[in-house]
Amino acid sequence: MMKSTFAHMFSKSSNNMKSSEIRELLKLLNSPEMISFAGGLPNPDAFPIEKLKPVMDHVMASHARDALQYGTTEGHNKLRDVIARGMGEHYGAPQQMSNILITNGSQQGLNLISKVFLNPGDKVLTGNPTYLGAIMAFVAHEASISAVTIDEQGMVPELLEDKLKYLDRRKEHPKFMYLVPTFQNPTGVTIPHKRREKIYEIMCKYDLILVEDDPYGLLRFEGKREPLMKSFDDENRVIYLGTFSKILAPGFRVGWMAAPEEIIRKVSIAKQAEDLCTNSFGQFCVFEAMYHNILFPHIEEIVNLYRKKRDLMIDALETHFPKDVRWNKPQGGLFLWLVMPDYINTLTMLPKAIENNVAYVTGEPFFPNGGGHNTMRLNYSYATDDQIVEGIKRLADVIKEFIDENKGKIAEDYVSIP
Amino acid sequence: MMKSTFAHMFSKSSNNMKSSEIRELLKLLNSPEMISFAGGLPNPDAFPIEKLKPVMDHVMASHARDALQYGTTEGHNKLRDVIARGMGEHYGAPQQMSNILITNGSQQGLNLISKVFLNPGDKVLTGNPTYLGAIMAFVAHEASISAVTIDEQGMVPELLEDKLKYLDRRKEHPKFMYLVPTFQNPTGVTIPHKRREKIYEIMCKYDLILVEDDPYGLLRFEGKREPLMKSFDDENRVIYLGTFSKILAPGFRVGWMAAPEEIIRKVSIAKQAEDLCTNSFGQFCVFEAMYHNILFPHIEEIVNLYRKKRDLMIDALETHFPKDVRWNKPQGGLFLWLVMPDYINTLTMLPKAIENNVAYVTGEPFFPNGGGHNTMRLNYSYATDDQIVEGIKRLADVIKEFIDENKGKIAEDYVSIP
Repeated sequence: MMKSTFAHMFSKSSNNMKSSEIRELLKLLNSPEMISFAGGLPNPDAFPIEKLKPVMDHVMASHARDALQYGTTEGHNKLRDVIARGMGEHYGAPQQMSNILITNGSQQGLNLISKVFLNPGDKVLTGNPTYLGAIMAFVAHEASISAVTIDEQGMVPELLEDKLKYLDRRKEHPKFMYLVPTFQNPTGVTIPHKRREKIYEIMCKYDLILVEDDPYGLLRFEGKREPLMKSFDDENRVIYLGTFSKILAPGFRVGWMAAPEEIIRKVSIAKQAEDLCTNSFGQFCVFEAMYHNILFPHIEEIVNLYRKKRDLMIDALETHFPKDVRWNKPQGGLFLWLVMPDYINTLTMLPKAIENNVAYVTGEPFFPNGGGHNTMRLNYSYATDDQIVEGIKRLADVIKEFIDENKGKIAEDYVSIP
Repeated sequence: MMKSTFAHMFSKSSNNMKSSEIRELLKLLNSPEMISFAGGLPNPDAFPIEKLKPVMDHVMASHARDALQYGTTEGHNKLRDVIARGMGEHYGAPQQMSNILITNGSQQGLNLISKVFLNPGDKVLTGNPTYLGAIMAFVAHEASISAVTIDEQGMVPELLEDKLKYLDRRKEHPKFMYLVPTFQNPTGVTIPHKRREKIYEIMCKYDLILVEDDPYGLLRFEGKREPLMKSFDDENRVIYLGTFSKILAPGFRVGWMAAPEEIIRKVSIAKQAEDLCTNSFGQFCVFEAMYHNILFPHIEEIVNLYRKKRDLMIDALETHFPKDVRWNKPQGGLFLWLVMPDYINTLTMLPKAIENNVAYVTGEPFFPNGGGHNTMRLNYSYATDDQIVEGIKRLADVIKEFIDENKGKIAEDYVSIP
């Protein structure tokens, strides 16, 4: 007897999980003709390969016995310490080493927070739309996501307060709120200073914890930096997630969590059971790259590279796209957000785009509470300059044809972003 | 208002988790006077540092753009492929690439299996005692562990069948069974071929899945290799967990799972939500170390190093330890298992040992169903040769004194291993 299926044995929580559309789309990148604006990959040209070679030589020459060994669950102490101090120097949010835990990328931070806080059915607040990987982590822990509409300045404080009042009446206090306040994935939208303060005020009033996910904050091309929510966290309500994936190299899988010590201790126990520790070699490389002052000068190079690519994509959009399509111009990050006419469903259009060797991510999966059928996310960091120009041309042709075919159809709903 | 505590907000499952005694003990390693036989660390002398330097140079020279990038959740395809073929060549259990998923060490494999199979309250079968990290992963998913007594040949088939009959009557079918069949952690015990077949037969009869955890199998100092349970898995019931932590370097955090494709697909979705992918750089290094034939010749060197350390520790035990203490002589792995007289509680004795600058792991936490108050696990892989001799002397003095103080007290229970 050969077992044909394990379906009846899988857990309830695992049956809630679906494969991320984005991760599945990564597989399309392998076709040589395909130009993909899907995914959220950094550009390999943004990896400081030549600068990392002597860093690795140094790690192997001087620290190999530790860098190849198991480490503590909390992470490499020198790295924790330099991050703790760096959060003061660069973010105005100084930490102690005991407030820092190294994660296997930010995604593990999201998963560990979910594990430590969420019982099945617990409420989590997010933006509508929000980062898909966060939705995946919350759903994997059987959370119920309640999403607040965002506009071109991010989450709308009035709507947040309305939602909290409503949940309060139903005695459904959210376990935490999740935000990407700067260059949000998927929309690229940044919450301005004043609105951050207003949101924090509401959080205090309603006794709410915030998970502040900040993978793109340092990738600012122009304009004034907005302060971290963590930087005015007098009430210790903010769990901050940082990562080296977008500013150094994702292949190391090194991110961090900055949080009150009680939470770090709890998360550390959960991480023990999950993977014992983050890979030591990557942690040592990241630390040495910071120690030898490679990281911050390199970030400037990435910013210059991505600024050029954003401008190139926006120029191409302006040249080739029909007027009925709108998009934003974020001051940093990896993504543009496009809104089509209401009668366009970007999911229905996707096979046609792929047929024409251009890929994007449909907006709808980013909306936990529904909506966004006529939106898409475009990534400008990964493609080459030539691909950006050619890919936008291809996509413009697909969209024009699709608009011609669908014009006059009735809109399914309406989305006001950006 | 400063939040003083988050205790009321933590999830039910996280409140089941306790910090591993072993991980906490790792912190003791930092004291320079301490000789620690706690932990299960490989010896840094067993890291092929000089051989890895050209491997890393090659990865950075020829594959940096991929090795520093995100990878697919399933893992680096070349590594998956060489593992799939290697399981045929070295283990008689050939796999397809689609049966292999790369994990952030074996511990992540245990966690992912738990996530994918376990609902709160589900039964898991283990040996009594069994690996503490597995207990942690199962408990983190609110499993109920049912442990079967093991003897000097591992899990006892008759007791396993008794347990399954009992559970069947109560309609409590276990989701899976967990075993470390070769050089078990903590006891060092190996299940012989015939008994493996008998256990597999019982598994088929009771429609049971096995998680075969095999971190130490290749670290055999002498004697004939026992076949993997996976090698006679005609019914596709075995999920195999392998790791490069003990045969190359744990600092890469690279392990793997070999399982039916349906399970790999499900686990891959769970891993997406957990950490997107395992660190690419470590995966590339491991693959290149295999491809350039560094791995297997190096394993012979580790085996020679650890064989000598095992012999040294056993010699020291025979020379210094009182006759009332028994221990085994495993043919491989990292651990010895010691049984004290019944009236000795190794947990009560531990502070005295630490006072005398020698550390061990108490046996009791390894017994999900209780027992083992008079047992301890000694690790011989990590300490230097001099430390092994000196540490066993120190421990002998502590034990002799403790026996003198406690002789005549009534035993709390009795444990028959080894």
